[in-house]
Amino acid sequence: MALLRVGYPASLPIELLQHLPAGIELVPIPSNPDTEIDVDFWIPPPAPVPGQKVWPHLRGVTIAQSMMAGTEWLTQLVGPSVTVCNAQGAHSISTAEWTLAAILATLKYFPLYRDLQRAADWRRRSQASKDYAAIHAEQRPQYPAVLQEELHGKRVLIVGYGDIGKTIEKYLAPFNVEITRVARSARTSPEVHPVDALDQLLPNAEIVILILPHTPQSHGLIGAQQLALMAQGALLVNAARGPIVQTDALVDALNSGRIRAALDVTDPEPLPPEHPLWKCPNLLITPHVAGSTPEFSPRAIQIAADQVRRLLKGEPLINIVQAAAPAASA
Amino acid sequence: MALLRVGYPASLPIELLQHLPAGIELVPIPSNPDTEIDVDFWIPPPAPVPGQKVWPHLRGVTIAQSMMAGTEWLTQLVGPSVTVCNAQGAHSISTAEWTLAAILATLKYFPLYRDLQRAADWRRRSQASKDYAAIHAEQRPQYPAVLQEELHGKRVLIVGYGDIGKTIEKYLAPFNVEITRVARSARTSPEVHPVDALDQLLPNAEIVILILPHTPQSHGLIGAQQLALMAQGALLVNAARGPIVQTDALVDALNSGRIRAALDVTDPEPLPPEHPLWKCPNLLITPHVAGSTPEFSPRAIQIAADQVRRLLKGEPLINIVQAAAPAASA
Repeated sequence: MALLRVGYPASLPIELLQHLPAGIELVPIPSNPDTEIDVDFWIPPPAPVPGQKVWPHLRGVTIAQSMMAGTEWLTQLVGPSVTVCNAQGAHSISTAEWTLAAILATLKYFPLYRDLQRAADWRRRSQASKDYAAIHAEQRPQYPAVLQEELHGKRVLIVGYGDIGKTIEKYLAPFNVEITRVARSARTSPEVHPVDALDQLLPNAEIVILILPHTPQSHGLIGAQQLALMAQGALLVNAARGPIVQTDALVDALNSGRIRAALDVTDPEPLPPEHPLWKCPNLLITPHVAGSTPEFSPRAIQIAADQVRRLLKGEPLINIVQAAAPAASA
Repeated sequence: MALLRVGYPASLPIELLQHLPAGIELVPIPSNPDTEIDVDFWIPPPAPVPGQKVWPHLRGVTIAQSMMAGTEWLTQLVGPSVTVCNAQGAHSISTAEWTLAAILATLKYFPLYRDLQRAADWRRRSQASKDYAAIHAEQRPQYPAVLQEELHGKRVLIVGYGDIGKTIEKYLAPFNVEITRVARSARTSPEVHPVDALDQLLPNAEIVILILPHTPQSHGLIGAQQLALMAQGALLVNAARGPIVQTDALVDALNSGRIRAALDVTDPEPLPPEHPLWKCPNLLITPHVAGSTPEFSPRAIQIAADQVRRLLKGEPLINIVQAAAPAASA
C-alpha cells in the first residue's frame, strides 16, 4: 500500500515535522512550485495568498488541514470535492490574550500615553481626564483627576462562544466582571443567548467582544443600528473578522464620539493609506496579528499531526468544516 | 464632649462625604488655607504637593489617614507625634490591572503598533519580527513571522507580596504562568522567598514585577548587578516606586538591548524633557497613573470612614504605618 503523502510548506522549520507520525511520505511544497506535486493530505500555508499560489500545482488532495481557525478562503479555494478541517484551538490562547490586552490598553489609555512618551512630555497627561469626561459624557467634577479606568465591575458581552470566547471568559473571570454570552444557538449552563437577542443585549454592555466565525449570517452583523444601541462610551472589540462590522457605520460612530473600539481585523484589510479609520478617535488597531505568536506553528502542526494519526488508524477526523461531496477516505 | 473634627480636602465631591458617619464635625480644608484650622483627624489630599501646602495651617492633628497605600511623604511631613494610617487596598485593583495591562501591551507589541497606526501604514509591521528576534537573541527562522508574544506559560517573579501583589497573582492565574514570590519576610503557603534570595531568583524569570513598598531597604534594590542577572529579553515591570530601581543602570540595560521594561513610576518623577529614559528602546512608560481611576476616591474615603467609625466606637485603628510617639487617642 502506498504511503499517505502529506504536503506541508517547505519553509516550515524542520523541527516542527517531528510532531508528525512515522509511516507517511513527507512532501515539502515550495512557495512557488514549478511542477505538479502529488499530495493526499495538504497542510496549506497559514495565510490566503501563499495558499492560493500553491493550490493550482497540487494533484490528488482529498483533505486540506488548515493551520488556522478561520477557513473561509480555504473552502473557497479547494472547492466542494476536498474535505476541509480547521485548527480549532491553535489560536485560542493568543487571540484571547490579544483581546484582554486590547481591552486593558484601552481602559488604561495606553495609546494616549504612548503618544506622550514619543513626545517626551507628560504635561499633556491631563488629556486623559478630558478624554474620559468626553467619552462618558461625564459632567461631574473628577477628584482627583481620572487618568485611566478599571475593568473591575464592567458589564461584558461576548458575541461568539467557541473555544476562543471561552478562553476570553476564563481570562476575564478574576476581574469581577459581569459576563453575558451570545452565540448562533442558545444554550444553558452557562447561559448563552441566541444571536437574535443581540439588539436587546447591546444597550447594557460596557464592553462588546466579537469573536464569532465569519459566515453569511454574521457578515455585517454590527451596523449603524447596533452601534446606535451601544451605550455612550462603550468599547467594541473585534477579534474575529473585519466584515462582521460595517466599516462605514463604525467610522461614523467613532467620529461622533459615541463609542470606542479596539480592532485586530478590519474591512478592508490591510487598511489602505487614505482610509478614514486610521484617523478615528478612541480607536486602537493592530494589523491582524492576534494569532501570530511563536507558539502558533507548534500548536497548529500538532493538530495536523493528530489528524494524520487518526487517518492512519482509520479513526474519524475531527474539526471538519467541509466534508468532501463524495465522502473523503484515506 | 466636643465632636471629632475630621478635615478633608474641600474639593472632594460632596457625595463622597456620605460615607462618613454621623456625630462628627466635618471640616473642609481649602487647597490654599489663609487661616489656621483646627482638626483632630486629617484626610490629606492624595498627592504630596497639595498635602505639603495644607499642613502648616493645621492645628491639633493627632491622626493622618492617607487616601494612598504609599505614605513616605506623609510621615515625613507630619513628624513623629502624629499617627499615620495608610489606605491599604484602595489602590490594589487599579494598580494590579495596570500591571496586567502593561505586561500584555508589551508582549503584544502595542507601542510599536500604536506608532504604525499614527503613521497610517502597516507595511512596517515586520518590525515586530525584527524586534522579537533582537530582544530574544533568536537566530532561528520564524514561521510564520512572529508579530507578538504570549503570556501563557511565562515564568513570573512577583517582588512584594502585599495586597497589590496578591491581586496581581489572582489576575495572572488563568494565564497558566509559573509564579515565584519574594517579599521582605519569607512565608509558606503560598511560598514566599525572602528578598535576600532575589539575586538567585532573577535569572529564571521572564517577567519581574516590582510591587513592594519604598523603604530604606528597597531603595535602589534593582541596580546594575540585578539587571545583569535578568535573562536576555526579560521584562521588568515597576508598579511600585521609582527609586526602587537605579535609573542610570536601567537606562544602560535598556539601551544595550538586554531587557525590556514597563514603568508607571520613575526616578526622577516627573521625567524632565531631556531625560535619557524617554528614548530607550523596549520601554513602555506611563506617568504615575496606575491608581488614578474613577473608583479610587470612593474606596479611599470608605477606608477613612471606617477608621472614623472605629475611633468613635473606641476600637483600635487599622493600617497604622506610624504610631504617634505618645500613643494617639481620640
